[in-house]
Order: sequence, then structure tokens, then C-alpha cells
Amino acid sequence: MATKQKKQAANKKVKTSPVVKVALLGFGTVGSSVARVLAASKFPGVELTHIFNRNVERKRSSAAAKAVPASVVWTDNIDVILNSKVDVVVELMGGLNPVESWLRRALAAGKSVVTANKQLIAYRGASLAKLAAKNNVQLVHGAAVAGGVPVIPGMLQGLGGDQVPRLSGIVNGTCNYILSRMEAGADYATVLADAQQLGYAESDPSADVDGFDARAKLCILSRIAMHAELDPDAVATQTISTIEAIDFSYAKELNCTIRQVSRAELDGRLVHARVAPMLVPLASPMAWSHGTQNMVVVSGRFGGDVVFSGHGAGGEPTAVAVVSDLLAVAQGCTTVELPVRRREVTGDFLAPHYLRFVVDDKPGIVFAISGALSKVGANIDSLLQRRGYPKHRLPFVVTTEPCLTSTIERALASVARMDCMLERPLCLQMLEIEDKAE
Amino acid sequence: MATKQKKQAANKKVKTSPVVKVALLGFGTVGSSVARVLAASKFPGVELTHIFNRNVERKRSSAAAKAVPASVVWTDNIDVILNSKVDVVVELMGGLNPVESWLRRALAAGKSVVTANKQLIAYRGASLAKLAAKNNVQLVHGAAVAGGVPVIPGMLQGLGGDQVPRLSGIVNGTCNYILSRMEAGADYATVLADAQQLGYAESDPSADVDGFDARAKLCILSRIAMHAELDPDAVATQTISTIEAIDFSYAKELNCTIRQVSRAELDGRLVHARVAPMLVPLASPMAWSHGTQNMVVVSGRFGGDVVFSGHGAGGEPTAVAVVSDLLAVAQGCTTVELPVRRREVTGDFLAPHYLRFVVDDKPGIVFAISGALSKVGANIDSLLQRRGYPKHRLPFVVTTEPCLTSTIERALASVARMDCMLERPLCLQMLEIEDKAE
Repeated sequence: MATKQKKQAANKKVKTSPVVKVALLGFGTVGSSVARVLAASKFPGVELTHIFNRNVERKRSSAAAKAVPASVVWTDNIDVILNSKVDVVVELMGGLNPVESWLRRALAAGKSVVTANKQLIAYRGASLAKLAAKNNVQLVHGAAVAGGVPVIPGMLQGLGGDQVPRLSGIVNGTCNYILSRMEAGADYATVLADAQQLGYAESDPSADVDGFDARAKLCILSRIAMHAELDPDAVATQTISTIEAIDFSYAKELNCTIRQVSRAELDGRLVHARVAPMLVPLASPMAWSHGTQNMVVVSGRFGGDVVFSGHGAGGEPTAVAVVSDLLAVAQGCTTVELPVRRREVTGDFLAPHYLRFVVDDKPGIVFAISGALSKVGANIDSLLQRRGYPKHRLPFVVTTEPCLTSTIERALASVARMDCMLERPLCLQMLEIEDKAE
Repeated sequence: MATKQKKQAANKKVKTSPVVKVALLGFGTVGSSVARVLAASKFPGVELTHIFNRNVERKRSSAAAKAVPASVVWTDNIDVILNSKVDVVVELMGGLNPVESWLRRALAAGKSVVTANKQLIAYRGASLAKLAAKNNVQLVHGAAVAGGVPVIPGMLQGLGGDQVPRLSGIVNGTCNYILSRMEAGADYATVLADAQQLGYAESDPSADVDGFDARAKLCILSRIAMHAELDPDAVATQTISTIEAIDFSYAKELNCTIRQVSRAELDGRLVHARVAPMLVPLASPMAWSHGTQNMVVVSGRFGGDVVFSGHGAGGEPTAVAVVSDLLAVAQGCTTVELPVRRREVTGDFLAPHYLRFVVDDKPGIVFAISGALSKVGANIDSLLQRRGYPKHRLPFVVTTEPCLTSTIERALASVARMDCMLERPLCLQMLEIEDKAE
């Protein structure tokens, strides 16, 4: 059987070529951590031989370079790597261009690729995997989602036997840092500035706060867990920048908090997928995650909810994922492959919704809102109005029974046009706890 | 390189023998769930061909047998399986005897083995793995710890690049069910009876409540995460049956709850390992786990704390782990192997301790206890005595600053001999939160 022949091939291999030569593309936070982790553990059979970086001399003379063996070739010329006898290229630069073309050349040249590049894998993963298979090499990307949390290898190797109709996750550490600090009382602008100072957020924070980073990760998770190939650009996103202190206060009254949640649900040939701030029950695992932690909940038909959590970002946790992948490639380990299908996407979910209005109060507002909701068939579940706010700028909240997000948005379109509305109404999905422990 | 040759071997294989023949040993709760999961998903390349069970006719005519293809050979003669052309034997019977000898014969005959047998893997895993390697077949046991939670594959494939000095887990669902119901107010005897009625606990509950089941799992986790081979019989255990309602009440005052925790910590050539009821901070992941849920926290030097949780037992979650392993074996997938070393074990941990006394109150008791603790160099951190208990049967609690468990036990040996002590003092380690999210 396959195992036998593979094992024999592997045994043969160990004798003829015991050392796998590795090149690092990118010597930033993660790249230098990879070098440090490799130096600390001296894994037999793995040798760092090349490092590529722009302005390579600056990197070579940095403090981080002290963990790098003297024998390593430093270069800013990618052809030096691609024309070398390197067996595995570890890509830690990010982005599609020029990385995609370089990795295509590496795969075509018979080099395996280990990458942490979520955008590349979300947009080009299927095509790159084909190229890798054609050239009998590997493409591994365990670090592309949730950094040091082994959700990708755990799903590939441990959940292949299940059917996964649903998954949700907190996969952007920056948003989680911002929202969990807002939960503790800070306001958005202050926390964002802190996150920028700490290096958690970019000077343009859009990729994080508007959900584009998480969207790429959600597509990768959906491919592995649900065998569904999604177009990242088709996945609905909603910014967390419209969340205010008052929302955490109302969420708490509803026994919830607010997190940036990435969720996907299989529905025949369709996948419901969305990255947005959502209300999360305090009793659900999703509320456990604080600071920059990541968490993924995979809901299996047979196995129920499985939770993975830990440090989703940072140099060393991500380096652990990269080096683990590298060991797997070096030892010739492969993971289970199941057929993946292209699926259409909708951002619609059947869920309870949280609607927050800020109005210049006058009689008839609740009547108008309830009328608009009733017209589309949405039932109000609760109405929350805290004391102590000025009538000319009054925030209040309506929650609905489960209905489609698009239905609610239809009702809100007319409500938003009312003169008394001082802000665009905020509409958030509310997660429900579905898997209860026995 | 290895990858290339392996992949080629695998490709060749797929053409010559596309179907892997599978025998199930044991058609109980898990075995019948495995048949059901296989029938539901029809994985290409996997064919169930044989089922072995004692009293096989009774099984064959059971309702569960309806998921089994008509072509399957049912037998109560193990030689039918061992002499067949089956490629993979899936063992779900448990225990060492006669299973060990059967699986040795299977491996020697060139059959791969997938097993959920924790005792077998804890006691004989290293020797069986050698036999498998010698015969160029696989031995896979992802279901042996935490059932449907992919902690074993996740660690093997995703944490191999880290160094793991410490791990802790809740790996016995029965104890977790009992303790989390006691946390909610029920008493031990009632909950144990309920657990027995629900089928969570055996009529002799010792393997669960006294820690022997969890001990085997802790040894398997230590082997994979810390590359440390432990003698299961040498791992200290402590029963949960001495925990009373009052302990949950005092634990809550300390912002803790009580769980059966299995923990191990690498200390040079020594491993600290213990399975015991322990105080767990309510803010730690260990306190999240309710009912029969399992949870494992792996603390990496580079990656920090990684949490795996979900349904640790039950037919279908365990079947997911078994079928996932089966797919990996069928596709010729292997996992990273790192050298494992035999390590000595101690049950000692440097930790704060919770001491509960039940006394016939009279002057001088606290003086005597504090004297005994002071004599061994243990510092008292707090003294808790709730009102409302009769003086002739007064429970009270002392917590200590971190010191060795053996030191505390030395002090307690003299205290326990005091006339006023109505029960043997209860001594529990208190877990501390060490990994804080940024």
C-alpha cells in the first residue's frame, strides 16, 4: 500500500540526502524569529542556507542576524535563491506581487514552499497547489491563519473525517485587541492610537479594522474545513470603526460582548460568509479571547464544536507554525487531501440582529422603526433604552428575532432617511450558542 | 529530496492499488459510529471490508449494523482478520490483553494500525511504533487522547517547531462532568450516580475518578509535546472523590473552581507530572470547560499557550478522530517524528496549595497548623473560615504561597495526627495563570 512505498522512499532518502536546504525570503519580525527558533532547536536534517531581503546589508548587520549561522548566503537578488540548490523556500514577505511569480518559479524549479502569506493563499492557493503537485513538491501554509495556533494542521490532519457545515473565528489580533480594550472601557480612537504605537496596527489600519485581513483567512479556513473555494472579494465585510462605548454597554445588558467575527456556513451549493463586528454571548468560547489572541471554532456534523485558540500573531508564535511546516516538508510528511469545490458566497445569515439608533428624540420614532421592521416581517425581540442620555442625542437599541441580514438592511434603508436619525443605524449580527456540552 | 520521492511513490501507488481495505476490531459505541461516519461521507480510496467482535451475530443484527455495507465480512475469529488482505486494522476494543498481541501480529503482517486505545499507547506506544517502522507500516492514535479534539495531530503537525516545557489538560470527561455539576451545587454521590445512569461512568468508577484514565493520556501528551517517555505507573494520581461542596464554595472565594487536571512540566532530565483535582482560576481557559468537554493547554517556549477544546468522548467525536487517522493512513500521510527520551517522574510541583481541614474546634488549632507549616518553611497566604458551621465540625481553609507539594505533605503528616482532626486534611495544588495575552 501507499504508506509502505512512501516509507521506503523516505528511508532511502534519509541515506542519500540527509539535509534539507532552506532559504528565507524576508528577514523581518517573523523571518528573524524563524532563524532564532531554528538556532535554538538545531533540528537534524534542516539547514538554513540563504536569506533574501531588500537592503540586505542593513538586515545582515542587525542584532537579529546574530542567530544566523555564518555559512548563510545573504542576498537581495531573488535569482540567487531560485538558481540555488535550496530544497525549500520559506516566504515571509506577504502580498501578491512580486511574491507570487517568485514562488511559481520556485515550485517549477522543484523547490517546496512554506509560506505565511494569507492573501497569496486565499487568492492563489488552489492554483499554486496544482503547480506544486505537478512538480512533485509541497506547498504548505500552516502559518497563514492564526499564526501559532495550529488550526490549519489540526483541521487537515484531525478533522478530515468530519463534515463541517459551520465555522467561526476571531482571526485578526488587531481588531481583537481594540474591541477587548473597548470592552474594558477605552474608546476606539484612543485604543487604535495605542495599537499603532505598539505596532499591532498599521498607520492605515483599514486592512485590519475593515475586515480585509480576516476575509482572506476566512477563505482559507473555508477551503480546508468545508472544501469550499470562495472568492475573497465576494465575502461581505463590515468595519469595526463604527462601534462605540454605548454598544458594549448595551451588549453587556444582553449578556454579550462585541468581537470581529469571521464566520462561514455551508448551505447546499452556497456559502454564507461574513467578516463583521458581531454580538457574542459571554458564555460562548468566542468571548474568552482577549488582547491579540485568536480563536477558531469549527463545528462538525459528527464531532461538534472544536475550539483552537492562542497567540495568532507575533514573530515567535508565527515562527513556530513556519518551522513546524518546515519540519513536515523536510521529513516528507504530507496531509490529507480532499476535493475542493468553487462556491458562491452571500453575506446573509439568518440570525438575531442588534440595531443601534442615535436620534434627536421626538414622539413616533419607535412606532416608525417598528413599522419598518414589521413591513419586512422582522420581529422585535427587545427594546433597550438607558437613562441618562440627552433627548437631542439619544442612543437606543432594538434587537430582533432571527431573520436575514438583507431583510433588516431593507427595513433600515427607509429608517435611515428619517430626519431624526443623527447617525446611520448600526446593524450587527448576534451569534447564538449552538453546541452545548452534554 | 524526500518529499519528491515520497510523492512519486504515492502517485505510483494510487494507480496500482486505489482502495485501502479496512477492518474494524470492536463494534461498540465508537466502532458503530466509525461505520456510520464512513457510510455518510463515502471517502474515495477507503473500503470497510471486515468487522471483528465477540458474539458477532448479536452485533450483526443490531440497528447500528444498518450503516455497514452488505459486502463486509463479520467475524469473531481474529485470525480471519489477521490472515486477510486488509491494509489497515482499526482497533477500538481497549485494554492491553489480548489486543496488544493481535496488533503486534497485524503490524508484523504489514498492516497499518489505527487505534483509540490510550492504555496500549501509554504503556506500549514506543515499542509498537518501532515494530511499525520495522515493517514499513503506520501506527496512528489521534483518538487516544481527547476523542474528537485534534490535540494529537495538531501538536504533531503544528507544534513540532516549538519547545514545550509545560502542558496541562482536562482529559477525563467523566470527572469534568462530576466536578462541573458539583460547581453548580450538586453533591458528589448524586452526580456520580447520575453519571453512571447516563453511561458516562462505569459501575466501578475508579479508573476515571482516581485518575488512571487521565494518567495514560497525560503520558501520551508528554511523549508528543515534550518528547518525554514516562512510566504511567510512576505518575502521581489523587482521587476527586474527597472533594466536597464546601471546597467549591471556598474555591469561589479564591476566584477559582475545581477540575481534575493532568499536568506535566519538563525540568532538565526530570518531568513533574500529576493527575489530581486542582484549584483552577476562573479566568484561566481550564475553567471554561464544562460537562464532558476536554481541554488541553500546551505552553510553548516560543508560541505561548495554545488551547484545544471540544468533545473529548462519545461515539461520533471519537469516530471523527479515527476516520481522520484512517484517511491519513490511506493517503500515505505521515507526521513529524522527533527523538523521544525516557524521563524520570515526580509528582512534586512548586505551587500554591489549598488545604482544607475539618476540625472539632478548640483553641490552638490554627497555631498548631501554622507552626507545622512554618517548620517546613511554607508560608500561609490566606486563611478562610466561613460562618455558619457547627464548632464541633468546622471546615476551614488555609492557602499557602508557592512551595513543593511534598513539603506541604510533610507538614500535614503531623497535623493529621491531631485529635481534633475529624478528616484527613485535603491538599490541592492551585494552578496559576502564566501566559497572559498581550
